[in-house]
Amino acid sequence: MKEIHAYGAQASDANLEALNIKRRDILPNDVKIEIEYCGVCHSDIHQVRNDWGNSKYPVVPGHEIVGRVAEVGKDVKNFKVGELVAVGCMVDSCQECDSCKEDLEQYCENGMVATYNGNDKHLGGHTFGGYSEMVVVRDKFVLKVPENLDSAAVAPLLCAGITTWSPLKQWKVKKGDKVGVVGLGGLGHMGVKFAHALGAHVVMITTSPSKAEDAKRLGADEVLISKNEEEMKKHQGSFDFILNTVPVGHDTNPYIALLKRDATMTMVGAIDEVDLHGANLIMGRKRLAGSLIGGIKETQEMLDFCGKHDIVSDIEMINIQEINKAYERVVNSDVKYRFVIDMKSIKN
Amino acid sequence: MKEIHAYGAQASDANLEALNIKRRDILPNDVKIEIEYCGVCHSDIHQVRNDWGNSKYPVVPGHEIVGRVAEVGKDVKNFKVGELVAVGCMVDSCQECDSCKEDLEQYCENGMVATYNGNDKHLGGHTFGGYSEMVVVRDKFVLKVPENLDSAAVAPLLCAGITTWSPLKQWKVKKGDKVGVVGLGGLGHMGVKFAHALGAHVVMITTSPSKAEDAKRLGADEVLISKNEEEMKKHQGSFDFILNTVPVGHDTNPYIALLKRDATMTMVGAIDEVDLHGANLIMGRKRLAGSLIGGIKETQEMLDFCGKHDIVSDIEMINIQEINKAYERVVNSDVKYRFVIDMKSIKN
Repeated sequence: MKEIHAYGAQASDANLEALNIKRRDILPNDVKIEIEYCGVCHSDIHQVRNDWGNSKYPVVPGHEIVGRVAEVGKDVKNFKVGELVAVGCMVDSCQECDSCKEDLEQYCENGMVATYNGNDKHLGGHTFGGYSEMVVVRDKFVLKVPENLDSAAVAPLLCAGITTWSPLKQWKVKKGDKVGVVGLGGLGHMGVKFAHALGAHVVMITTSPSKAEDAKRLGADEVLISKNEEEMKKHQGSFDFILNTVPVGHDTNPYIALLKRDATMTMVGAIDEVDLHGANLIMGRKRLAGSLIGGIKETQEMLDFCGKHDIVSDIEMINIQEINKAYERVVNSDVKYRFVIDMKSIKN
Repeated sequence: MKEIHAYGAQASDANLEALNIKRRDILPNDVKIEIEYCGVCHSDIHQVRNDWGNSKYPVVPGHEIVGRVAEVGKDVKNFKVGELVAVGCMVDSCQECDSCKEDLEQYCENGMVATYNGNDKHLGGHTFGGYSEMVVVRDKFVLKVPENLDSAAVAPLLCAGITTWSPLKQWKVKKGDKVGVVGLGGLGHMGVKFAHALGAHVVMITTSPSKAEDAKRLGADEVLISKNEEEMKKHQGSFDFILNTVPVGHDTNPYIALLKRDATMTMVGAIDEVDLHGANLIMGRKRLAGSLIGGIKETQEMLDFCGKHDIVSDIEMINIQEINKAYERVVNSDVKYRFVIDMKSIKN
């Protein structure tokens, strides 16, 4: 049996049995994917450390998966062996509720099946993610990856990408809009790239002056240091939309003050208590919203957009053996901007 | 000089001089109104007690004004002497900014002029409200009152009415929608009446089982006791819109849990810190919004709707001499549902 890493497990074929992990036999609508790359999401760390209290062990994390089709079930028409494909945060949903019918499987009313630590419909127990050699996924949850993109750098699009893309599209960000992106991490750096590509005037809003240069390289037109009250005041009431990627509880009031009347700030990361003063919404008829990843159709649209506009994540590649060190660096915000595991290394 | 009431002043003609209050001479676009009735809004109490720290004395409160036109300026074409009219929370705005041009004078970017304790453009100093015999108002801020309605009971429509009408219209509440109204006070009782008249399935959400019967009389189809966790759970994820009239800081999370995916709760009263957990917005792509009174055009539309549907406020009439006692009862939520001052009593 191979090493089980301190915070989770790697499901190499060599240690599947030791981990008591089975892969299901290929069903008529299944696609078996040989994983080439898997991004490292902060939620991987929360899950393997059981920060949310709902982890099931062994945890095999990973929901930013890129690989090649290795085998398809007999009813699969849309994918061929050898095709470059991807899997994100979901591997199944009921397909029957209103949310599924509206292509919003992430809000499936019967519960979408998360790529890892979800409830496995077929084998019972829980699902296992992308820190693995292979994954078997229902065809409807497999995405096509444009071949012109650097496939390793595509991996983070499957979570960090779609999480920021979806609210920008939902709130119809368009050419000329003044869009703020709060926080420059894995999510924020994708938010800047997307908002820029959509033609918005992008303002990176950050506590760290040191991030200014990089934000501009990524596509920000301006950088607003949120600790600078004078600067914040100058931008008051001027934003058409703000994408807030802060991953922890925080004071939303200074950002809401930046919004125009009738404008919205969408939070995508703060699954925690936030500070909010009602008057700040009432006085300008403003809105605080949330958004969770994106639906499968929308994820494909994002990948196609990325293919067309040559957009990928900024990544740092690692071998699976470096994962624990990488986790420490993610926790310390010491990565530009996403670690991606070269999954060939799992055989080392 | 007449008595100046403990918490504010009554601007009877007999004591104007003692209060150092002048009325401006009628300008070409002014309408002078003989006030018949003035509603008592909770914000009157906040202002006269200087709860918000920005009161200017003497405070003459009152922004739910109904009366008859006594005189018009030479350029006024829209109003005639003797006509039944009303004035709400605003008496002027710049008329030039985007908000004014969009008929949203309440968000005037140069600052709307509040009916009392606002900055008087003409005489300097501050404006004086409806606890008075007369008021002079720019014609654009004067509303027409349908003659078929009980004019005393119309007064609260000018604040409590428009404050609840505006978000119901903004968020397009329509026949068959499941709409929650949180809190059964001056605002809430109007919210129930309006949502019912718009054809919604109205659920009164309250902490007080004692309010159930009255809520149904006002038009609620169901009453949901927010302290009953089991009942709250049954309604989870089922509301198309929630109008939250709670006037103080509170925990918004149990109400957000009631919303469907993509649905909105609008707060109209909580100008205070509220409790909010980010995950509750993120997990169902929900929205927490605010709304402040309504524009003049929208207020006229509301009054016309009320005329057509025979909607007025439930009121308890008082004389101005009873105002301090009435304030105490408002503070103790002991009024169904709005005090209205019979302004003839100011001459007593």
